[in-house]
Amino acid sequence: MLNPATPAFKETLRALLPASAFKEDTAPYLSEPRGRWAGQGLVVAPANTEEVAAIVRACAKARIGIVPYSGGTGLVGGQLMQEGPAPVILSLERMNKIRAVYPSENVLVCDAGVILANIQQAADDLGRLFPLSLASEGSARIGGLLSTNAGGVNVLRYGNARALCLGLEVVRPDGTIWHGLTRLRKDNTGYDLRNLMIGAEGTLGIITAAALKLAPRPVGVGAAMMAVASPAAALDLLALAGERIGEGISAFEIMHRQGFDFLGEVGPDFQSPFDETPEWVVLIDVGLPAGLSPETALEGLFEAGFEAGLVTDGAIAQNNAQRDAFWHIRETIPEANRRIGSVSSHDISIPLSAIPSFIERGAQALAQVGDFRINCFGHLGDGNLHYNVFPAPGKGRDDYETERPQVKRVVHDLVHSMEGSVSAEHGIGRLKVADLEKYGDPAKLAMLRAIKDALDPLGIMNPGAVLRQKP
Amino acid sequence: MLNPATPAFKETLRALLPASAFKEDTAPYLSEPRGRWAGQGLVVAPANTEEVAAIVRACAKARIGIVPYSGGTGLVGGQLMQEGPAPVILSLERMNKIRAVYPSENVLVCDAGVILANIQQAADDLGRLFPLSLASEGSARIGGLLSTNAGGVNVLRYGNARALCLGLEVVRPDGTIWHGLTRLRKDNTGYDLRNLMIGAEGTLGIITAAALKLAPRPVGVGAAMMAVASPAAALDLLALAGERIGEGISAFEIMHRQGFDFLGEVGPDFQSPFDETPEWVVLIDVGLPAGLSPETALEGLFEAGFEAGLVTDGAIAQNNAQRDAFWHIRETIPEANRRIGSVSSHDISIPLSAIPSFIERGAQALAQVGDFRINCFGHLGDGNLHYNVFPAPGKGRDDYETERPQVKRVVHDLVHSMEGSVSAEHGIGRLKVADLEKYGDPAKLAMLRAIKDALDPLGIMNPGAVLRQKP
Repeated sequence: MLNPATPAFKETLRALLPASAFKEDTAPYLSEPRGRWAGQGLVVAPANTEEVAAIVRACAKARIGIVPYSGGTGLVGGQLMQEGPAPVILSLERMNKIRAVYPSENVLVCDAGVILANIQQAADDLGRLFPLSLASEGSARIGGLLSTNAGGVNVLRYGNARALCLGLEVVRPDGTIWHGLTRLRKDNTGYDLRNLMIGAEGTLGIITAAALKLAPRPVGVGAAMMAVASPAAALDLLALAGERIGEGISAFEIMHRQGFDFLGEVGPDFQSPFDETPEWVVLIDVGLPAGLSPETALEGLFEAGFEAGLVTDGAIAQNNAQRDAFWHIRETIPEANRRIGSVSSHDISIPLSAIPSFIERGAQALAQVGDFRINCFGHLGDGNLHYNVFPAPGKGRDDYETERPQVKRVVHDLVHSMEGSVSAEHGIGRLKVADLEKYGDPAKLAMLRAIKDALDPLGIMNPGAVLRQKP
Repeated sequence: MLNPATPAFKETLRALLPASAFKEDTAPYLSEPRGRWAGQGLVVAPANTEEVAAIVRACAKARIGIVPYSGGTGLVGGQLMQEGPAPVILSLERMNKIRAVYPSENVLVCDAGVILANIQQAADDLGRLFPLSLASEGSARIGGLLSTNAGGVNVLRYGNARALCLGLEVVRPDGTIWHGLTRLRKDNTGYDLRNLMIGAEGTLGIITAAALKLAPRPVGVGAAMMAVASPAAALDLLALAGERIGEGISAFEIMHRQGFDFLGEVGPDFQSPFDETPEWVVLIDVGLPAGLSPETALEGLFEAGFEAGLVTDGAIAQNNAQRDAFWHIRETIPEANRRIGSVSSHDISIPLSAIPSFIERGAQALAQVGDFRINCFGHLGDGNLHYNVFPAPGKGRDDYETERPQVKRVVHDLVHSMEGSVSAEHGIGRLKVADLEKYGDPAKLAMLRAIKDALDPLGIMNPGAVLRQKP
């Protein structure tokens, strides 16, 4: 059983840390983007790894829980603890230095509290690309992005956060420091602790720094929006794009007409590139080496797709401003969704070839539950859909309180039956603990618990996230 | 303490398995490629996952060690146990079916005992590429390749074995089966067990099947050998190649003149592409999308490298036969090394920018120990060198018995001091347990031990590999 972080414990910490490490225990630390849960706790913001270690040692001694707080943009409640003894909220915000860059190695080493956009900028300044890119990149910090193995729009080409990390520095639950900040591409000396920490959502230790992989910046970039008749046509177009453009495809996103309608409804500045909004639209982004023209490649793909009956309409960005405009549409869909107010949102993945069937069966199953609008969009190239269920026109989110659990169950049961995942990129946090218990393979659940107990025997690291707290 | 696999235990297994599962307890199961250690044990070859589980359950009940045996090509003794109570040697050779292919998903699912070359062929039959490629691909099996996180020549572009796997089926040390054979590209539901099992060298469970990622087959492939003045020039050429050809570079290998000399000495069919063998040679392999010519790209790189003073001579393959001939040189160096007989071989990695300094300092340090020939070659693009130390001309490996431990220490100490790894791709096995203990970060070692004890509390899985057996 854990103890609460009391005012007396704050005094204990005051003896260990400078005054600058203490923050008001207020929002944003106690809220989350969708406003669904309120947190609690004592907020500290250490300036360096040694201060993190001192805090963790003190918490371990007093058996007080620690909630690591990075950018606060997580969508599954991993960054706040609504119930139980008040924890220490350990914010990484002051650990925001880029420690070193190694351009000839395509490596950047930084503190865990650096904001993603600042890492992207630092890479750009070196003539390189840090490919992790997602809607919250202006506030999300790399420690949290690694702890949740963040995805985003470039996973198809560059992999998720996991694939972009070479080494980590981690403060363990007993306050010792794992110095694993290697820049090596190959190192087969023992179990893969790096990938164990990545995606552990702060339940096995606190990531305090990372060595990140940079990529060469593609010489030519481009984007196109193409109207497709169906998700199956979109998948055929993805295969065609793979044959024609190969690894040059950086992103392949799908959007349903519902998203465009929502943007028209709540986004006054919305301009559709289509005269008539198609049922399904894909956004294709390419980055090509010298000697190949993105526009030519996308025009060729459009023509081939048109001839094959996959594509009915399309627009190819003629400059960076148009490319940005296409991406702006894609990136503002989540905001439009928030304004409309969903009954239930799902971050799911499905084996690629099963996606058309899932979309059909999902709509059929939900029609049995009630009258909904479904906005299905996301990272088709990765099999990752944001499958969000909204009130019928004229109704609000609150009109569906009774249906909500059923909606979640119907969608997740279907995903599970089709060998999919109920959390493709957002993680488990506290929101999906019951889903993990319900859908997780028993042998897997046993291993997760064994690892948690072995590496955090006191259970102080982000208590209740990923795995239920033991009584 | 473990018990030996006695004839009585063999009778216990006979009651669980068909007669076809039993093998003669002889070579090759009890030997390894370099002939340095002899194994012992009772050999069984289950036909499927259920039989594997039955064997593991019986071993757990009787507290008998299990050594998983895949292709037997490992170089660090992970596949045989020379000392201690005789184990069960569990060979995967009969689990050799490709279970399913999903061409539209670029996924292949197979048993753990499938030979790598057969997977490459199956991918090729689908018009795809399975990029894992190494000298032993004709006999290495995928279970062992994943358990050791194998590297090889295409890591630069496609990553190591870890990067090519989506899901696993694993028999746990208690005989339960983890059904983790997902084809999903994104699945953030709990800790990364897949990557924990990959590279665990069979010490946490037995991989029985894998879902593998295929890549699009590049439209045009090509290769060149270029003479460079120094390792530093080779690195500059690598950077230049990155700028000009980007992700199209599939491999970037370096070879010292010593390797060519050895080939001339022991390989009667050896034909050098150079009139006079240069001090250092790089082998560059490219695979490009439609619209780009490999020959043109390599010619352009050669000219740019020549102008920059990096390249002094070169040959560009004009057809596949020439490309194969270049690769034949590279791939036969290990065999030539074996025939010469090394004093000590090292599979190391170094941060890329430190490699020239390492090569210089390594030679200086070894000159203090004795008179040696050094054959340094390997995967420069990954910072992974095979740094092998040979007798002076006229002497033999046996003349250096007293120096051998010192040679190893000098090389590994230098690698460690330069933030490198003493096992880049071969793993720890039983050969490098002491190195891991010596050079491993204490917090890392504590986590390795905690994970081993949590997931294999009886200590029956590949006892003594990676971590020392507890008394």
